[in-house]
Amino acid sequence: MTATSTSPDTPLLIDGLQCGPYDRDVFLQLRAGGVTCATATVSFWEDAVETMDALAAWHELLAANADLVMPARTAADIERAKAQGRTAILLGAQNASPLQGRLGFVRLFHDMGLRVMQLTYNNNTEFGGSCYEESDPGLTRFGREVVREMNAVGMLVDLSHSGERTRRDAIERSALPVALTHANPRSLYDHPRNADDTTLKALAARDGVVGLATYRSICGHYARTLDDWCAMVARTVDLIGVRHVAIGTDLSPKAGAAEFAWMRKGRWTRGEQRGADLGASPDSATDTGEWLTDASGLSQVADRLVEFGFAPDEAHAVVGGNWLRLYSAVLEGGDGS
Amino acid sequence: MTATSTSPDTPLLIDGLQCGPYDRDVFLQLRAGGVTCATATVSFWEDAVETMDALAAWHELLAANADLVMPARTAADIERAKAQGRTAILLGAQNASPLQGRLGFVRLFHDMGLRVMQLTYNNNTEFGGSCYEESDPGLTRFGREVVREMNAVGMLVDLSHSGERTRRDAIERSALPVALTHANPRSLYDHPRNADDTTLKALAARDGVVGLATYRSICGHYARTLDDWCAMVARTVDLIGVRHVAIGTDLSPKAGAAEFAWMRKGRWTRGEQRGADLGASPDSATDTGEWLTDASGLSQVADRLVEFGFAPDEAHAVVGGNWLRLYSAVLEGGDGS
Repeated sequence: MTATSTSPDTPLLIDGLQCGPYDRDVFLQLRAGGVTCATATVSFWEDAVETMDALAAWHELLAANADLVMPARTAADIERAKAQGRTAILLGAQNASPLQGRLGFVRLFHDMGLRVMQLTYNNNTEFGGSCYEESDPGLTRFGREVVREMNAVGMLVDLSHSGERTRRDAIERSALPVALTHANPRSLYDHPRNADDTTLKALAARDGVVGLATYRSICGHYARTLDDWCAMVARTVDLIGVRHVAIGTDLSPKAGAAEFAWMRKGRWTRGEQRGADLGASPDSATDTGEWLTDASGLSQVADRLVEFGFAPDEAHAVVGGNWLRLYSAVLEGGDGS
Repeated sequence: MTATSTSPDTPLLIDGLQCGPYDRDVFLQLRAGGVTCATATVSFWEDAVETMDALAAWHELLAANADLVMPARTAADIERAKAQGRTAILLGAQNASPLQGRLGFVRLFHDMGLRVMQLTYNNNTEFGGSCYEESDPGLTRFGREVVREMNAVGMLVDLSHSGERTRRDAIERSALPVALTHANPRSLYDHPRNADDTTLKALAARDGVVGLATYRSICGHYARTLDDWCAMVARTVDLIGVRHVAIGTDLSPKAGAAEFAWMRKGRWTRGEQRGADLGASPDSATDTGEWLTDASGLSQVADRLVEFGFAPDEAHAVVGGNWLRLYSAVLEGGDGS
């Protein structure tokens, strides 16, 4: 581990998507990594009550570790966490399954603290299409209603696992900027989870942000070293501009076979599912980047980006400023006017 | 209907418990009655998701009638409603069934706007005993945890349908004052739903409030005319003091057979259940007081209490000031210190 670094002179660093499970060790890794805010996943396939169980468990976990972490509901909470040297936890869902088919539940889960939600995880749903299905029918009528409601209440639309057509529909329909919290350019590494250049440019044109992931399955050789990963950052910045590129590690250092089986198979199949690990053995964990086995490694990123040729303010935008700007624009809600 | 009266010169009037269903007609009755705040029931037997459906429906209903009503989450919201000439709707549950067995859901339902909750409705539960069961085992260990959590988050403990033992246990255990939102003194009208003098005095000693109900089943002859009901107010004030007596009508002017069947039978019995109407035919509606068929009749109460001998400030305390004080003390949460 490198030196702990949530001190005021380090840049504000935000990881736009992590998976868990979390415990005090993981919070210490976040502190060692100088992470001011991490968006933590509370749902992959969970329904309303199961998601509420996860939210209730987060209340307990945050209260028991209040010296290290605090809940975040607004961008101001993240800045408060920075001032206090703690890590703000923003809660997100990787699926819209918590809605259990109800438009009205968007507001209720927002009331309960959920601030980020994917419209689809790995399967087509009533809201839109997934990147892993043979056919993505695009954002559905119900999906449009959900996007509008998410805009109104202040919940970030995340399109990381959605299909390309659904991504573009949602980018176009959303009154507020949206995100790919954890995905990479498909032009740099060809994988169905990654986004094509047209999508990424449309995302940026609406002032959205892509969080570049760090794990091997969707990074390929860009996962090998921090320098390799910084090269992916630089090429993505060349593609869509430094204002639209950020970090979304997808880290889950404490996940075991049960957690990966749940992420990949939920309750929808008894068959083999490998998630993003298209070539891996079915029971393998998601390979992390070789340079990043847990969040403590993130402390190196800002300095390395500068060594790589980024100006300091550009490096700070990538490691946290861009997420903070997006959260500020979205989490208060509105119709974009 | 008497003259509409949510104007500044009329006293702030709060009805501590109503049942619904609600529509614009009912909101107009509330306005005609000069009602600044009504606590509306969202659950009798509903589980978590069903209660969330009710909360989502309330969001729609309040938005569609924003000229007449507004949501209330704090005592300050009620005073704002008064200043705006609107009726504040405070949301309450007549059962702890929304918790679906989870202590952690107290906070989540508070996040979603629930501000009042009974520990039991008509049946014994994992939290305590009901007034209609043969044996009330008192507040359970789980019930104590729920009372403590309700105190912490700022949710009013309502003991209206609980058994006498559970009522006394909860009054004693709660760090903050509690309520019988709709019940009467059993010494004035002998009915299992009413509370004995020992309980009422214990409630008052902890600065709690009883909302006197208006419907015949638990009022007897005190339901006949407004003067009769004022006599019940006066006798209750003699018993526990003017600071602890308020209004809790239990009105449900639009409820039909289906609603009454749900209130009385839920999903727990196929047998005959009459609720509080011990002598009524099984499919009858709850008889309202003859003087109060809907909330518009409440506009007369404050003046009549004065004619009955109450000082104006005493009448104002009974029609609204006492609930406002209790809500102020409870809804911000705390441990009573």
